[in-house]
Amino acid sequence: MTAQDEPRITMTNIAREAGVSVPTVSRVLNGRSDVAPETRERVEELLRRHGYRRRVNRAQDPAGLIDLVFNDLDSPWAVEIIRGVEDEGHAACVGTVVSAIHRRPAASRQWLRNVQARNTDGVVLVTSDVQSPLYAELRRLNVPMVVIDPAGVPGHQVPTIGAANWAGAVAATEHLISLGHRRIGFIAGPRTLVCSRTRLDGYRAALEDADLPVDPELIVQGDFYHESGFKGTAELLSLKQPPTAIFASSDQMALGGYEAVRQRGLRVPDDLSIIGFDDLPEVRWSAPPLTTVRQPLSEMGALAARTLLRLAGGERIESLRFELPTELVLRDSCGPVEP
Amino acid sequence: MTAQDEPRITMTNIAREAGVSVPTVSRVLNGRSDVAPETRERVEELLRRHGYRRRVNRAQDPAGLIDLVFNDLDSPWAVEIIRGVEDEGHAACVGTVVSAIHRRPAASRQWLRNVQARNTDGVVLVTSDVQSPLYAELRRLNVPMVVIDPAGVPGHQVPTIGAANWAGAVAATEHLISLGHRRIGFIAGPRTLVCSRTRLDGYRAALEDADLPVDPELIVQGDFYHESGFKGTAELLSLKQPPTAIFASSDQMALGGYEAVRQRGLRVPDDLSIIGFDDLPEVRWSAPPLTTVRQPLSEMGALAARTLLRLAGGERIESLRFELPTELVLRDSCGPVEP
Repeated sequence: MTAQDEPRITMTNIAREAGVSVPTVSRVLNGRSDVAPETRERVEELLRRHGYRRRVNRAQDPAGLIDLVFNDLDSPWAVEIIRGVEDEGHAACVGTVVSAIHRRPAASRQWLRNVQARNTDGVVLVTSDVQSPLYAELRRLNVPMVVIDPAGVPGHQVPTIGAANWAGAVAATEHLISLGHRRIGFIAGPRTLVCSRTRLDGYRAALEDADLPVDPELIVQGDFYHESGFKGTAELLSLKQPPTAIFASSDQMALGGYEAVRQRGLRVPDDLSIIGFDDLPEVRWSAPPLTTVRQPLSEMGALAARTLLRLAGGERIESLRFELPTELVLRDSCGPVEP
Repeated sequence: MTAQDEPRITMTNIAREAGVSVPTVSRVLNGRSDVAPETRERVEELLRRHGYRRRVNRAQDPAGLIDLVFNDLDSPWAVEIIRGVEDEGHAACVGTVVSAIHRRPAASRQWLRNVQARNTDGVVLVTSDVQSPLYAELRRLNVPMVVIDPAGVPGHQVPTIGAANWAGAVAATEHLISLGHRRIGFIAGPRTLVCSRTRLDGYRAALEDADLPVDPELIVQGDFYHESGFKGTAELLSLKQPPTAIFASSDQMALGGYEAVRQRGLRVPDDLSIIGFDDLPEVRWSAPPLTTVRQPLSEMGALAARTLLRLAGGERIESLRFELPTELVLRDSCGPVEP
């Protein structure tokens, strides 16, 4: 039996079965606090059991808005994603509401209250934790959702968008190997993000394919921001046997690495090759211009918006994981290993 | 007589005086096309004459949304502004809709139609041309508005937000003079923007105060983006008597300048001092870290949002031009002139 054949579950049915009024069911659905806890529990249990889907904001009554939610708006990375989502939204006559929830439960709750007050056609979450209460709440409210670069693996039929992180990391590492490098450092991104772990896997796989050892002391932890790339590079350069090349798994960490090299009076790529990941527009202007793996951030944003609008329009989405290609971009930050 | 004492002009009054129905007045206000041209003209004339202010979306019926409109979403600069506006919006339980209109009339018109369909509490325009049809249309609709770094001087009581561009440019130029530089190049931003012209004025004023000539061949035109800084620096370095220091009036142009210096086998600051303007978060990671003039972009965004929300709430705004302080940030890209 498909969803279309199921008898439609209405708020009236739920209210009758719970022995409460329709406005009470509505208050529960809207996350309002003026409902007795045991009533809320009973109603929520029935909503879950019947798989009640809110019909607000869908085909019948579009809000003309989609939400784009970041943890923080603090990186040039974000503007690339915003541009892609906005472009696609604009083409569909839909506005893009941009928010930062700072990983704070209070900010998430307030954001959710605002969204419920003004309506939304759906939400694009960026690097969101799929274990978070916010994520669960959006699921419960049946708001159409797409996640770009999730932390954790979302179940429940939520599409995710990412780049070919594994293939990109393999290409970056193979490029360094082809230049003769044998000791290649790796600066990892946040452990929680699937994209970070996949890049680490790609680095390891390329080393293994070339019969090179995976030396744990060559792998340091970063958080995608400059400072952690600076510290990670300094740490790697302090090893008894320092690497001759570093693969920083974000552009910002790679540029942080540049500064660690410069502070020691060394030069990129003469004394250390550095390769990044992202291809932010400004890295072609770094000194030297950064060799990196391009992930198509604005296209990822556009695809997320397009997928979300299809979901909001009631379409079924065939593929739940969309992966856009990455590409090695050669510039001037990698050179052959000194003989 | 204050605004409060004036008899309230309603759509009903306007409709009666124009001899049309209230829905027709509403259609005119909403920019709909299904109104005869002469009817539209008569109604618009009456709306203007009576100073009719739309009461939709104001205190009575807030949309819970403000709009933030860029020409393009293509610079780390944008994310700083977005963060400030979003922060303030979040605190006021208001969502921030981010749009790019690409200076294209068609995109502007569509954006305006979308806004009218979904409502807004007001609009923050960034580097907008106050001569544009969009600007005139928003004025006509009496949508509360604030402009960050306008092109041209908006009349009509529209508040503008900017940094102390003149004082910042004076400080940057004086810093270079204090290091012994006498031939100081200047890379200007887009001529249309008031902030660009004010920076040029500050550069000139500092030279004049130090009894140094303002040599027109030392002033080149840029557009705030990297490429123009690269070209401008190359041009200045090709002069018979090249400058020993360059003041690039945006950080991105300064970093473009770095690349021009690097490509000639020269070094910053040993062979050329470069100072920027903006203090984008990433320039402390440029090689070498950039000396620059900080303008508080996210605070400018926050102030714009706060001012807009006051306007939307019906408050009168005392000062029509808000100027936030700039600050010289010393890093490693400027050195003493070679003896």
